[in-house]
Amino acid sequence: MSIMIIYGGTRENGNTEILAERAVEGLDVERIYLKDYKILPIEDLRHSEEGFLEKNDDDHNSIVKRIQAHEMIIFATPIYWYSMSGIMKNFIDRWSQTIKDPRYEFKHSMSSKKTFVIGVGGDEPFVKGLPMIQQFKYIFDFIGASFEGYILGKGNKPGEIYHDEAAFELASLMQKRL
Amino acid sequence: MSIMIIYGGTRENGNTEILAERAVEGLDVERIYLKDYKILPIEDLRHSEEGFLEKNDDDHNSIVKRIQAHEMIIFATPIYWYSMSGIMKNFIDRWSQTIKDPRYEFKHSMSSKKTFVIGVGGDEPFVKGLPMIQQFKYIFDFIGASFEGYILGKGNKPGEIYHDEAAFELASLMQKRL
Amino acid sequence: MSIMIIYGGTRENGNTEILAERAVEGLDVERIYLKDYKILPIEDLRHSEEGFLEKNDDDHNSIVKRIQAHEMIIFATPIYWYSMSGIMKNFIDRWSQTIKDPRYEFKHSMSSKKTFVIGVGGDEPFVKGLPMIQQFKYIFDFIGASFEGYILGKGNKPGEIYHDEAAFELASLMQKRL
Amino acid sequence: MSIMIIYGGTRENGNTEILAERAVEGLDVERIYLKDYKILPIEDLRHSEEGFLEKNDDDHNSIVKRIQAHEMIIFATPIYWYSMSGIMKNFIDRWSQTIKDPRYEFKHSMSSKKTFVIGVGGDEPFVKGLPMIQQFKYIFDFIGASFEGYILGKGNKPGEIYHDEAAFELASLMQKRL
Repeated sequence: MSIMIIYGGTRENGNTEILAERAVEGLDVERIYLKDYKILPIEDLRHSEEGFLEKNDDDHNSIVKRIQAHEMIIFATPIYWYSMSGIMKNFIDRWSQTIKDPRYEFKHSMSSKKTFVIGVGGDEPFVKGLPMIQQFKYIFDFIGASFEGYILGKGNKPGEIYHDEAAFELASLMQKRL
Repeated sequence: MSIMIIYGGTRENGNTEILAERAVEGLDVERIYLKDYKILPIEDLRHSEEGFLEKNDDDHNSIVKRIQAHEMIIFATPIYWYSMSGIMKNFIDRWSQTIKDPRYEFKHSMSSKKTFVIGVGGDEPFVKGLPMIQQFKYIFDFIGASFEGYILGKGNKPGEIYHDEAAFELASLMQKRL
Repeated sequence: MSIMIIYGGTRENGNTEILAERAVEGLDVERIYLKDYKILPIEDLRHSEEGFLEKNDDDHNSIVKRIQAHEMIIFATPIYWYSMSGIMKNFIDRWSQTIKDPRYEFKHSMSSKKTFVIGVGGDEPFVKGLPMIQQFKYIFDFIGASFEGYILGKGNKPGEIYHDEAAFELASLMQKRL
Repeated sequence: MSIMIIYGGTRENGNTEILAERAVEGLDVERIYLKDYKILPIEDLRHSEEGFLEKNDDDHNSIVKRIQAHEMIIFATPIYWYSMSGIMKNFIDRWSQTIKDPRYEFKHSMSSKKTFVIGVGGDEPFVKGLPMIQQFKYIFDFIGASFEGYILGKGNKPGEIYHDEAAFELASLMQKRL
């Protein structure tokens, strides 16, 4: 299975990345670090006369194309303020534009994808991270992707995720299946 | 009561704004349209040696100061992909930096605020908008603010919110109390 | 529209009933007070050889028949420990049996119903009552019923619901539409 | 650590029990099968003059006493209709009465307990079981108990839980820690 990880974090080698890399150890994976790209916030022009014109001179569309080439997409994000990072949210918000763009057939292509979420947070992520999981579920339902599962890990300071044995067990199990 | 509305939308005179303006009709309110400001995504340096330096040359801090001058803060956001807009999320993500900055005493100042959420979405917002409400609850609990309530409205196309009679009733009731 | 209210409360004239009765004032409504009936907990025999035999000598089936005669079903329950009352839960649990019983064609008949939830609780019901709403959504989705909306009210001591002006506004609005 | 499991299921040797027994394999555990006891639904008399009199001639109070003797309480319930079983809910509903009964000092005694939830369901339990987890969190917060974690497993037909490798991994890990 062809795998892509989309990283929403803003720190090098952060807890989320450590955990996600465990889940794909030894596998051939394409990685996208959203922090390294320019992705403008959506400008909601769905209902304006001109619609969403191709005026955004940024990296969004090229990332969309790279996603479309894979079978499984792993969304790996630190839990900032009880949901995905703002840079990941801006990326997803832009899908409203991509969906309207006939060049991508975005919903059609995404409906065959498997998706997975890995999130690490410091404040009771196993409970307070659940609204984020519910949001991802709605997102994946909307685009027709199959939500295969998620791992929530606990970590705040760098490397703290190593203490979350359950999260690593689940990541190892995931790695065996991929 | 001194009131501020923070708008997370990207459309002029969108459904969220129509509903929120009903809730504050005739009142003296300061408005912030996040789309008109430059707010960089957080760079997570909480645990680096230098910490969060004052290197972000953007509008975040000035908005924080304006918020601190008010008693009630209304977060008004379209529901994009089942949560607040990415630009509002980026703004809130940056609070992790503000909290560490002794010039703002952010948590102390926010602990006396009343907060309110107004969100408008097109896809079953009364159910699929609930994780966003739970998320705001956790956010307000963390900073110690008092979450006074929320209004979820239904609307997709421009002006569609006018058909949501219940949302307007609740906005009118809110206006009487403010 | 033919309306039934199913009451899950255990107190006469409780807060939930006061609010629900406001929503149907002047309308012709059939009321079921679950506390006045004998409804045994489900015995999970879905996978035993004999299946669910008609051995439960209680009122469950007669209530099911009465529900099937109406177009809108309002589930009105006090929020006990952040969810519907145990007696209402036992009633719904038994649907697993009803669904298997060919005499009722339960899923088929319920798929044309409109449903509504009214819940009153004392501990931040507008936030802590939301998981209950999400559960009802899943329940109604499963049986194919159309979840038309809900009202959450705040009240603990008898009559306290009268102070929840917003809940009454929504109940009045609902009454006009029914 | 002294451990009690409270079973909310209605089937002998069901999926929930199989998973929970894995988590306590080889440990000294007291088990309560709620289905084997008589527990009346709560009658809400919190605000009546006589209050909750000791008129319930059932097994509730004796179970409460047994719980109080342990340090960790595991709530193991099949997920019926997206929440705990009605018989477990009736048991918890009665806590409103126990809290008012000075013989038990219920909140005080529960505030030193560790709690854990094990739930098994057939319909996307990893997502649709989350509102139940959020409810348990609110319940445990209310009584002051420490919510140590939860395992959600997938299973419908008898024994189907054996296919949920991740749930068993987590149960094994829990067993090592207990």
